[in-house]
Amino acid sequence: MSILVVGSVAYDSVETPFGKEERILGGSATYFSTSASFFSDVNLVAVVGEDFAQEHVDFLSSRAIDLRGLTRVPGETFHWKGRYGYDLNEAQTLETHLNVFESFRPQIPAEYTAADYLFLANIDPELQMEVLSQVSRPRVVACDTMNFWIASKPEALRKIIERVDIFIINEGEARQLSGEPNLVKAARRILDMGVKTLIIKRGEYGVLMFNGASVFAAPAYPLEEVFDPTGAGDTFAGGFMGYLANTGDVSEEGIRQAIIFGSVMASFNVEDFSLNRLKRLDYGEIEERVRYFKAMTHFQGLPAAGSPK
Amino acid sequence: MSILVVGSVAYDSVETPFGKEERILGGSATYFSTSASFFSDVNLVAVVGEDFAQEHVDFLSSRAIDLRGLTRVPGETFHWKGRYGYDLNEAQTLETHLNVFESFRPQIPAEYTAADYLFLANIDPELQMEVLSQVSRPRVVACDTMNFWIASKPEALRKIIERVDIFIINEGEARQLSGEPNLVKAARRILDMGVKTLIIKRGEYGVLMFNGASVFAAPAYPLEEVFDPTGAGDTFAGGFMGYLANTGDVSEEGIRQAIIFGSVMASFNVEDFSLNRLKRLDYGEIEERVRYFKAMTHFQGLPAAGSPK
Repeated sequence: MSILVVGSVAYDSVETPFGKEERILGGSATYFSTSASFFSDVNLVAVVGEDFAQEHVDFLSSRAIDLRGLTRVPGETFHWKGRYGYDLNEAQTLETHLNVFESFRPQIPAEYTAADYLFLANIDPELQMEVLSQVSRPRVVACDTMNFWIASKPEALRKIIERVDIFIINEGEARQLSGEPNLVKAARRILDMGVKTLIIKRGEYGVLMFNGASVFAAPAYPLEEVFDPTGAGDTFAGGFMGYLANTGDVSEEGIRQAIIFGSVMASFNVEDFSLNRLKRLDYGEIEERVRYFKAMTHFQGLPAAGSPK
Repeated sequence: MSILVVGSVAYDSVETPFGKEERILGGSATYFSTSASFFSDVNLVAVVGEDFAQEHVDFLSSRAIDLRGLTRVPGETFHWKGRYGYDLNEAQTLETHLNVFESFRPQIPAEYTAADYLFLANIDPELQMEVLSQVSRPRVVACDTMNFWIASKPEALRKIIERVDIFIINEGEARQLSGEPNLVKAARRILDMGVKTLIIKRGEYGVLMFNGASVFAAPAYPLEEVFDPTGAGDTFAGGFMGYLANTGDVSEEGIRQAIIFGSVMASFNVEDFSLNRLKRLDYGEIEERVRYFKAMTHFQGLPAAGSPK
């Protein structure tokens, strides 16, 4: 099964307490695709400018990411510049140059329109809707967004939410979208908007999944070195959707398992700048960390017989 | 097995977005004892003033808490006044009247000195040391502290840390004590100070346990209504120590299980002011919520045979 992702391919300039890098490969679709490529074929739809380096095209191709949907147009590639403080939870955006991304109108190549798994990375919800109108009938549509769209295009976003199966946002976005400080109530309100499965990312605190019937709580991998958090959310989504597409199991059990694989991928990604850690990651390391998650969350529960006073 | 706890019995005046209560029963030893009493006998050592109401003595007695160590002296009972905002994570202290607690010098009754399980609630580490010098050889000593003692009595606190088996603090305290923003590194530094088991409370994000060999991550129960967070940490510790004392299983497996029972007790406590929720709690509800925790954290892990590409 292959996955279609529509989002950004970008250059990032990132400053963390541990170092500083200029114009490194980034973008939501880049992180998503690279992460998903460990599990599934990926078709990428995005736009870059004339400055987009051949080495980065070659890298994505080397991950078996299909780039027929990557359009190159006159101008410069989307460029984001940000800084993280010691807590590494929230990026401070220093500069955003949309460049060629400003006039991005996603055109889904004909050979991609029958995609079974679709991820709408964080772009204008009106463009996310245009993507939906170009695909036939995906088995699973997952979607991300950000505070900017929640505030500026609430109507368009609500229409998207009604049409997606899995909505993946962070804690602050869940509170903002629902207008509800309590996260459990916030989740219920968002489910009421028409989402079947809501995944709330909480950074170093892990992930919560709500589907109306039950709640799944996954911790984050306890990292000693968070080098650069950029792309963690998209890397999570890539591992999550990649695993779903690989197994085809979209039951609650399958979704829980995919959340762990997504969490594992994100935990690797933040260990280095850009996609550097994923570039040297092998599947054995992924399996080892999945086993770590299982061990880290294990407890006996209620004994089969007898109970304390 | 019985537990000995030394800490505060207090009156609290609490304001939350959901209501306001004056001079309600509180204090670290009160929350701890009541929670632990669901699992084990508890011997309480604390001090109250002449204003401490008989109904509160009666309540503690009704929970089979042994009060021979509860001293009544001239003056008023410790009184804390605080307020919580909508995020309910951090209390804003409005007033602290130590009153009779100011000159508290814990005297452990002779019949308590052979205690197998000892909890040193958050009091001056020099007093915690005095308690340790009065007990013979407890099987498990657990201890709490707070930012004030970390800053004002670091030497005395370090001596306590060397002598306890289980140190239970919150995330901010772990960072403050270790001088390390990364929580995994902070935990390692605290273990290096001589603690065998470190439990870090993260409020609505759950609990992390470190012991040098492994990490255990427990989520918090996803509550729709957090009415009053006062006493959550001590209620956690009470459920945790109560369960340990009940089963006698202080293996890592036993400690993990006890963390879940502690988390369950804390999740009930915050559903109402003071100890009101624990007053009407029955053991069946505790078991039901333990099962919920098990279901909430379940995922398959790596399949026995075969793995994704």
